[in-house]
Amino acid sequence: MKKELGVKPYLFPMPVLMIATYGEEHDVDVMNMAWGGICADNMVALNLDEDHKTSKNLKQRNAFTISVADIAHIEAADFFGIASGNKMKDKFERSGLHAVKSQKVDAPIIEEFPLTLECKVVEFQHSAAGFRVLGEIVGVQAEERVLDETGKVDPKKLGAFLFDPFQNGYYAVGEKVGQAWSSGVRMMKK
Amino acid sequence: MKKELGVKPYLFPMPVLMIATYGEEHDVDVMNMAWGGICADNMVALNLDEDHKTSKNLKQRNAFTISVADIAHIEAADFFGIASGNKMKDKFERSGLHAVKSQKVDAPIIEEFPLTLECKVVEFQHSAAGFRVLGEIVGVQAEERVLDETGKVDPKKLGAFLFDPFQNGYYAVGEKVGQAWSSGVRMMKK
Repeated sequence: MKKELGVKPYLFPMPVLMIATYGEEHDVDVMNMAWGGICADNMVALNLDEDHKTSKNLKQRNAFTISVADIAHIEAADFFGIASGNKMKDKFERSGLHAVKSQKVDAPIIEEFPLTLECKVVEFQHSAAGFRVLGEIVGVQAEERVLDETGKVDPKKLGAFLFDPFQNGYYAVGEKVGQAWSSGVRMMKK
Repeated sequence: MKKELGVKPYLFPMPVLMIATYGEEHDVDVMNMAWGGICADNMVALNLDEDHKTSKNLKQRNAFTISVADIAHIEAADFFGIASGNKMKDKFERSGLHAVKSQKVDAPIIEEFPLTLECKVVEFQHSAAGFRVLGEIVGVQAEERVLDETGKVDPKKLGAFLFDPFQNGYYAVGEKVGQAWSSGVRMMKK
C-alpha cells in the first residue's frame, strides 16, 4: 500500500560531500553539500545557492576540491553545513582541520578527509533548477589507510557516512549485500 | 599519507536509482542509474547516455518515475543495469516486477520499490558533461511499511543499498552515527 508524501526532495542515500575553495585572501572555505556528485566519467556537478561564499570563491578561482567526509570528522563535516562562510570569518579555523594547496588546481585539500577529487571549473550554468557548477576531475587522492592490498579504495575502510533527507540523520555504511553487474546476471539467462 | 589514484569518478556513497518510463507501445522500461539525483527542492537531474531506451522514452513521454531500490529486489535492480532496453524486448517482464501507471505523470510506478518520485521533464540539456534531463518532482509515494509512527520515512525500514564505484560492490545502510545541523553545533559556540 503506497502513501502520498507530497513534493519532497526524497532520494536515498544522499552523500555528504565537502566542497573546499580559496577566498580572496587565500582563506580556506569548506561547505557541506548533498545535492550533486558525479555526472560523467571525469566530471562532477555542484548544485549550490549562488549566494554562498563557495559560489563567490568558485567564480574567482575556477577551482575546487570535493572530499568524502568520514565519521571520525563528522562534527566538522556537519559544522561546515551549519556555519556560513559569509558570516563567520574563522569558519575553517574553528573546525581544527588542516589544508594544503592542491598541486593541480587553485584550491585547498583538507588533509583529514580520506578521499579528495581535485577539480577545475568547466562551466557555470543557470537553469530551472538554479545555479550549477560543472567541474572536471583532474586528480584523485586517497589516504593510504583506506586502500586495500591491491591499491583500490575499500569502502569499509573509508569510514564514510550518508545523509537521510527524511529525518536529517547521518548513517554509517553497513555490510556488503551484492556486486554490481553480477547480482542480476541470472535474469539475463532466462 | 595521500596516494594519487588518477582521474576516476570516485565519490561515495553513490545511490542505486531506478528510472522507469513508457515506450511507444506503453511498454515499461527501467534502468539503473548512479549519476544523478536531487538538484533542487523540487527537482531531480538524470545524467544519461543519450542512446539509452530511457532517453528515447523521455523525449516521447516527457515523464518518468525515479525509485529507490531495496535489498529485497537487488537482483532485479542490478539486472536493470546490465540489460539494454534497446536490445531486450522483454526486459521488464523478465524481472518479475509489476508496474501501474502514475496518476500524475505519463510513466509507470514499479510497485515493488519502496519509495518513488513522480517527475515531469522540464528540460533536456547538453553540455561538456553530456546529456542531462531535468525533472520536476510532482509527487512522492512510499510504501506504508517504510514509514515510522509519525508518517515519515524511516531510513532503516527502507532497506535501501548503495553503490561503491571503487570495486562495484553494493552495501546496506548501517547504524545511525549523527544528526545533521546538530552533530556540529558545538563548533558554532566556540
